[in-house]
Amino acid sequence: MSSDPPPNRVRLSTHSSEFSWIDRVADREQQADLGRSGSIGIGDDAAFVPTHASGVLIATDTLLEGVHFDQTATPEQIGHKAIAVNLSDIAAMAGSPVAATVAISIPRQMDVQDVDRLMAGLQATAHRFNVSVVGGDTTVWDGPLAVTVTVLGEPGPQGPITRSGAQPGDILYVTGPLGGSLAGHHLRFEPRIEFGQQLARSCALTAMIDISDGLASDARHLAAASGCGITLDAAKIPIRDGLLGESRLQHALSDGEDFELLCALRNPGQTPPWLVEVGRCTEGGDIVLVLDGRTQPLEFIGFSHSLKHEE
Amino acid sequence: MSSDPPPNRVRLSTHSSEFSWIDRVADREQQADLGRSGSIGIGDDAAFVPTHASGVLIATDTLLEGVHFDQTATPEQIGHKAIAVNLSDIAAMAGSPVAATVAISIPRQMDVQDVDRLMAGLQATAHRFNVSVVGGDTTVWDGPLAVTVTVLGEPGPQGPITRSGAQPGDILYVTGPLGGSLAGHHLRFEPRIEFGQQLARSCALTAMIDISDGLASDARHLAAASGCGITLDAAKIPIRDGLLGESRLQHALSDGEDFELLCALRNPGQTPPWLVEVGRCTEGGDIVLVLDGRTQPLEFIGFSHSLKHEE
Repeated sequence: MSSDPPPNRVRLSTHSSEFSWIDRVADREQQADLGRSGSIGIGDDAAFVPTHASGVLIATDTLLEGVHFDQTATPEQIGHKAIAVNLSDIAAMAGSPVAATVAISIPRQMDVQDVDRLMAGLQATAHRFNVSVVGGDTTVWDGPLAVTVTVLGEPGPQGPITRSGAQPGDILYVTGPLGGSLAGHHLRFEPRIEFGQQLARSCALTAMIDISDGLASDARHLAAASGCGITLDAAKIPIRDGLLGESRLQHALSDGEDFELLCALRNPGQTPPWLVEVGRCTEGGDIVLVLDGRTQPLEFIGFSHSLKHEE
Repeated sequence: MSSDPPPNRVRLSTHSSEFSWIDRVADREQQADLGRSGSIGIGDDAAFVPTHASGVLIATDTLLEGVHFDQTATPEQIGHKAIAVNLSDIAAMAGSPVAATVAISIPRQMDVQDVDRLMAGLQATAHRFNVSVVGGDTTVWDGPLAVTVTVLGEPGPQGPITRSGAQPGDILYVTGPLGGSLAGHHLRFEPRIEFGQQLARSCALTAMIDISDGLASDARHLAAASGCGITLDAAKIPIRDGLLGESRLQHALSDGEDFELLCALRNPGQTPPWLVEVGRCTEGGDIVLVLDGRTQPLEFIGFSHSLKHEE
């Protein structure tokens, strides 16, 4: 038994001078004062989150060093992104985020101050969206930095908006420009919580998804879930400023990590100014792109493939 | 931008022959048929979990290769442990687990069949406790295997049982033998869901915690949260079969990963046969051990320290 490596697990509830940053995590929660009456936060076996709704939304995403961020990202940016990707998932269900847990696996050589900065960045974004950090798990290990955040949310009055309600004839929109996210947007994007809620409230919203894998892939996900086809209009797709050259459209279709919402509306009248029409839902299961008057099949391209493979 | 490493993120919703094990995850959920009416599981941006209670318990724990398991553990055991440690946290709140998400970071060289076996093991334990796996996140990377599970639960009719309700005079119990868990118990323990619920139902339960850091550490956590002291009776502490020699007691106090419950009862009458008295809560904040008639301070020893440091 003594040949086992000494476990080095530290709970958020542990008190130790080496891990005083954990106390600061709890302090920041106390100052934010977002816990609902009767809630139990950091420091017990599990957290308890009172809810107003009869069920909860739950989203989990992991950020890994070398995959979702690299050495150029600041600790605050990593913390922001770790919770923002989950808030984006709650936004895509038209929900309101409520609470989060954070599991962080810390490289042995990582500076404790950087851990503190990461958590401060994470909590700043959490609190801006009225989300309490209610617990988690912290371990020091010999691997790279890994942060897994789980966000709990409540559905809006319309209930959860899934990917599966679109029908032929519905019009497709996105909430902002696409492509080139890896140049920096993926570290500082704003999760579209407000947009998601506003769409559910004021439009005949039939399906929604956040664009994490790229418009091409996520349109395919929405179409597959809804059992319809999709026609995208290349001329209408909003492309991020700064993307140049012939591959601009390709980037907008396939880069991923845009974290805008892609949604389907039925018989839309007046739509919000931040909503950009990009196509429509069709009969059958084909995903096609209209480009320069020609309709062509949209290859399966997206975030889970290297751009280099496509070129 | 093309200098960024190609992201290699695969959602549980992604369909790809390389990741057909993900389809099997969804298939097993469908066969288990545990989703409550109106629930949304794997395949959307977030899951939706209908609840009967007015709030949810949430627990998150990460298992890391080289820290919480090593090469001798089977994939099924890793999957079992990954969810069981979280079920143990829900047990310690006297709750009923309902749903889980799984974030798994897979070493590039890991056999896909082993990933499938891990998930099968995880889901078998989940389903045995009526828990649906409702979502998650999967990434292939160059780091070691990391599995983060989040479990949602509902409190019992008595509400969540915290660590903080014990008072001087309360009697302390554990639900089973302690020590030597790393020899194998930590990979196959049964989370004490039933015991936790039964204690909340039939006893004057004032505080509860699961023993993950070791009896000494977790008694200290319970005492600190409750604002009382604790006296442990060495002669009463149940020690796991197979532990031999003079260090037996030390192992039972400090090894950790026992995943038994430590609880405080007020004026206990008849107690269940599986409950073993180990001490009592006292005035003041001292944590002491009565050994061979002598009362001595219990050093701060536990799971987060190497046994070698203690010897």
